[in-house]
Amino acid sequence: MSRATVTVAYERLAGEGFVVCQQGAGTFVSEWAARAGHGRARRRSEGTIQARPVWQSIPLPTAFDRPARFDFRTGLPDATLFPHRKWRPLVTRVLRSNERASIITYEHPAGHRDLRAAIARHIGHSRGIEASMDDIIVTNGTQQALDILARVLLEPGDRIAVEDPCYEAPRRLFESLGIRVVGVPVDRDGLVVDALPRGVRAVYVTPSHQYPLGVTMTLARRQALLAWADRNDAVVIEDDYDGEFRFEGRPLEPLQTLDATGRVIYVGSFSKTMLPTLRLGFLVAPSSLRMAVQKAKYVSDWHTSTLEQAALAAFISDGGFARHVRRVGRIYRERREMIADVIRRDFADHLELVPSSLGLHLTAVSRKATVDQITEIRDRAADVGVAIHRLAFFAVGETAQTGIVLGYGAIPTADISEGLRLLRACFSS
Amino acid sequence: MSRATVTVAYERLAGEGFVVCQQGAGTFVSEWAARAGHGRARRRSEGTIQARPVWQSIPLPTAFDRPARFDFRTGLPDATLFPHRKWRPLVTRVLRSNERASIITYEHPAGHRDLRAAIARHIGHSRGIEASMDDIIVTNGTQQALDILARVLLEPGDRIAVEDPCYEAPRRLFESLGIRVVGVPVDRDGLVVDALPRGVRAVYVTPSHQYPLGVTMTLARRQALLAWADRNDAVVIEDDYDGEFRFEGRPLEPLQTLDATGRVIYVGSFSKTMLPTLRLGFLVAPSSLRMAVQKAKYVSDWHTSTLEQAALAAFISDGGFARHVRRVGRIYRERREMIADVIRRDFADHLELVPSSLGLHLTAVSRKATVDQITEIRDRAADVGVAIHRLAFFAVGETAQTGIVLGYGAIPTADISEGLRLLRACFSS
Repeated sequence: MSRATVTVAYERLAGEGFVVCQQGAGTFVSEWAARAGHGRARRRSEGTIQARPVWQSIPLPTAFDRPARFDFRTGLPDATLFPHRKWRPLVTRVLRSNERASIITYEHPAGHRDLRAAIARHIGHSRGIEASMDDIIVTNGTQQALDILARVLLEPGDRIAVEDPCYEAPRRLFESLGIRVVGVPVDRDGLVVDALPRGVRAVYVTPSHQYPLGVTMTLARRQALLAWADRNDAVVIEDDYDGEFRFEGRPLEPLQTLDATGRVIYVGSFSKTMLPTLRLGFLVAPSSLRMAVQKAKYVSDWHTSTLEQAALAAFISDGGFARHVRRVGRIYRERREMIADVIRRDFADHLELVPSSLGLHLTAVSRKATVDQITEIRDRAADVGVAIHRLAFFAVGETAQTGIVLGYGAIPTADISEGLRLLRACFSS
Repeated sequence: MSRATVTVAYERLAGEGFVVCQQGAGTFVSEWAARAGHGRARRRSEGTIQARPVWQSIPLPTAFDRPARFDFRTGLPDATLFPHRKWRPLVTRVLRSNERASIITYEHPAGHRDLRAAIARHIGHSRGIEASMDDIIVTNGTQQALDILARVLLEPGDRIAVEDPCYEAPRRLFESLGIRVVGVPVDRDGLVVDALPRGVRAVYVTPSHQYPLGVTMTLARRQALLAWADRNDAVVIEDDYDGEFRFEGRPLEPLQTLDATGRVIYVGSFSKTMLPTLRLGFLVAPSSLRMAVQKAKYVSDWHTSTLEQAALAAFISDGGFARHVRRVGRIYRERREMIADVIRRDFADHLELVPSSLGLHLTAVSRKATVDQITEIRDRAADVGVAIHRLAFFAVGETAQTGIVLGYGAIPTADISEGLRLLRACFSS
């Protein structure tokens, strides 16, 4: 064994307190290690404390555990398109500049200054949102942005309206907080504003690319929603899901830019444009909520980890982020068109595409299959290595639409044809 | 202007949709940019939506805004001692291995597998805690660990006991959730268990190094606390604050290892041993709570950002972390002894040190000054560039102890004498 190995082993033992080094005398087993060696046959009960009952009704997501050969799951970008070679030097540069900093204290709860400034400029350019860095709070993705808003705005027992069907994680968050979740139907024009019940404190919507249906909320609906919110003294939480990936012209104005009464809170994320594991998102709050939002972030976890915030700030500021989004957008568009063509051509008897012009997924409603039949098809597809989501999975109420949701963030372009061929066979059998 | 600059500018404009490039034809201002150019004189109201009233009573921390020439504030490690040269290659290695990964999905809510395994081994060695990786949830520091536990265990209106004086951020968290916070006195033996009121669902304690008093809870008190929790069907949340920095032998067993009934939840942090801006901590939950804790992390923010989790896993596993803690522990010990000597020698008329054997701060109670006088001294000290915390700042109830808290994480060893000399003058004037 080399001398270095032995030295490392001794250093670890000393570091962990197992041995004591006495200069000039040698190394000795420490007193407590000698004691601990005798061991105790300790047996802890593991069942005394129970969690609040609400947690029994919240499922833990399992979808991301099993990798699929043909992966049409939604919510995932293509990690092979991530600009690793540009990202690594940016992270390294932040680490080097940290070396020169003599004091590293807790960050401001609102987030890294440079990132907030970069986000404010970026959403000004790309989404027409007028915001200063002071309007922005960096969060751990969309999910934490919604958690912070729930803390700031909603008491247990309050009601929040969500789109039906709806992204599952936010719904579960609201339920876990004792907030009553009301599903409101979505049609081809977006959320059916006339179906919003009274007594709702907040409405959570994905107007750019409804998740999971994929429709874009029309301008008329956007205006109706804002008027409704004003009449009912409600808040609108605008999750700009997929808003960065527009393929046909410019999308409609965000609700936030149409809002004249300060009722809209805008939520954005870098999970799809960059990587979900970065856990970086943000929200833009009206100034009446700014202090409370910062306080809610502070009590939640002080602030978001700074290293990747600083690297992302540099990536946005040097134009790399906008170029990256444009580049991957072209690839996603190609995949989208491939899938749409195959669905129209080979699945015409079974599925009808929901018209949509942007994003990372396509939704197709079933022409005849029941919810149970779609579940069987999903299971058969899984058996041959094809992962898809059922539309019914996202239903809030009882009246589930039948259909499937096809994401194209995680599947390479070259695998799409074969994956859909296998999926088609599952519809026939 | 160089060709490269022009190219970059055009790329940014195209990336943001301001111009459209038509192959062979040229670059044109896009349709929407032309429209947007006409501008709208939009004016948003900023005062419509109000936060829940509870947020008015929660202060946003301001202490970390202003740097001090002589910084005796608590809760900060010395960033110049951070092992930058070892940390950077670990982060870079993770980034390089990400390049080879074809799929990067959301992480499991419990956290990065390697880090959970490394933490389990580490706290087994250093703190005698028997835990497997499945018992561990990675959190964004202690603060989020407490938030998750509050979500899992406590309803609004429930009561939690905290030590008085107490670290402010957890108290504010509990208050913001509508949980009733009860302060319980601390004496030289730790939390006064006999003073715990009935009807308390959880007790939040810092037994290793009470924050801010600095005492270590005696074994007798630890046993009394566990017996009390068992009699009262309560949970004990053990924040092992400063437990890594032990200077005199091995500290007492964590409550978690003494617990035979599965009532103790252990919370640890890397904010002081590494850096607070990493936002990395963890909790060890009894198995009866494991699923609920994972679900609460999932609805909060899915999971903690993975890059630094993976780097920390490697740092712990290769022994670097234990060596680092040992190395900086020696430096902190030296600072601690310097401060203790000066307080005993030069402040004997004014202050009495609270005996304590570990950690990153010393507390000295005042022999005669009132709370207001200590506030005056703190202000005078700030004027000459010396930052200290008042003990009264941490009081939960009315009966504030008078004294000061001196951290030595953020002040270089060479500055301690001069800082204390300036502070001493503030006591005389």
